[in-house]
Amino acid sequence: MRKGELTRQRIVAAAAPIFNERGFAGCSMQDVLEATGLKKGGLYRHFASKEELAAEAFAFALNQVVKIRTGDLGHIPGSVEKLRYIVERFVETPSPLRGGCPLMNTAIDSDDGNSVLRELATKSIRDWKSRLEKIVADGMRADEIRRGTQPRKVANTVIATLEGALMISRLEGSKQALKDARATLEDFLDGLRAAGR
Amino acid sequence: MRKGELTRQRIVAAAAPIFNERGFAGCSMQDVLEATGLKKGGLYRHFASKEELAAEAFAFALNQVVKIRTGDLGHIPGSVEKLRYIVERFVETPSPLRGGCPLMNTAIDSDDGNSVLRELATKSIRDWKSRLEKIVADGMRADEIRRGTQPRKVANTVIATLEGALMISRLEGSKQALKDARATLEDFLDGLRAAGR
Repeated sequence: MRKGELTRQRIVAAAAPIFNERGFAGCSMQDVLEATGLKKGGLYRHFASKEELAAEAFAFALNQVVKIRTGDLGHIPGSVEKLRYIVERFVETPSPLRGGCPLMNTAIDSDDGNSVLRELATKSIRDWKSRLEKIVADGMRADEIRRGTQPRKVANTVIATLEGALMISRLEGSKQALKDARATLEDFLDGLRAAGR
Repeated sequence: MRKGELTRQRIVAAAAPIFNERGFAGCSMQDVLEATGLKKGGLYRHFASKEELAAEAFAFALNQVVKIRTGDLGHIPGSVEKLRYIVERFVETPSPLRGGCPLMNTAIDSDDGNSVLRELATKSIRDWKSRLEKIVADGMRADEIRRGTQPRKVANTVIATLEGALMISRLEGSKQALKDARATLEDFLDGLRAAGR
């Protein structure tokens, strides 16, 4: 890897938790300069604008979180078990990044303004939903999940409940809301099983 | 009402949607000056700091939303029906304020910094949870809701699912996630009914 590319990655890694914690408007290029020890010219040689850096910082942050929170589903046998495992990982694995869930932060931060960040957040939700929908559809084909189940509804329910519970948990400084969400979702997911499974 | 008090309320009403839309860091006192047409001295005569104005703007915004979204529960007969009505109102009534749900915005915006706003958001969640928990507890006493139901778990589930679905819906520019959340919550709430109710 070339030295320029390394510096660029170091800037993104340093900027990610700052944007995640303070939001786009609350994070200045000066903050990033201080975190990296770079000079202004050095920073702008790599990133033409704060928008460009924020977009890469979000992608970096989200990638970290997805990697840690999704884990490896390959060894999980059934489709309901896969969905339960995703819920468990989300509830039990703290965000590796200061400032909480980058998807929620960016969704709320960008929903009235910054269109590049908004598109990235929308794509992340779409990807997450697709992964869940595929597990449900596979489960129906394998007769593990009841015919007639709506994959989209399952995906929306799981993501909404987890993200909303994370918001409450962060505000309360307690895992209770996440644990309650997990218990509710486990009942919900068990209710999807095909008869006899 | 005295003229000073009227001006103060006019400032709060004008500032509320700006803070709600742009967040604390993204809204400047200059923005509020422009929205109200006041001079700097006039604004600072009423509010010593941006923090003070933001706190009142949040309280104002939340009050508006709660009033419109909660509606009147007095005419709803049973406890499960009351909970279903709350879900329906949340899903069907758009926020009266630009920028979406002030509770979620303030929760995310303040969870790493502003302690006054954070406390207000935490108190709002606590109040909302208490209202739901009371309905569940009343329902158990009236034998409408199964004994052994955990009011706190019901409250966390309802709030988490609604708030998370609102986040997805705003990002997607579609009500689908809110409608899916409503369907899931209706099944969840019907599952709380005591046998024979």
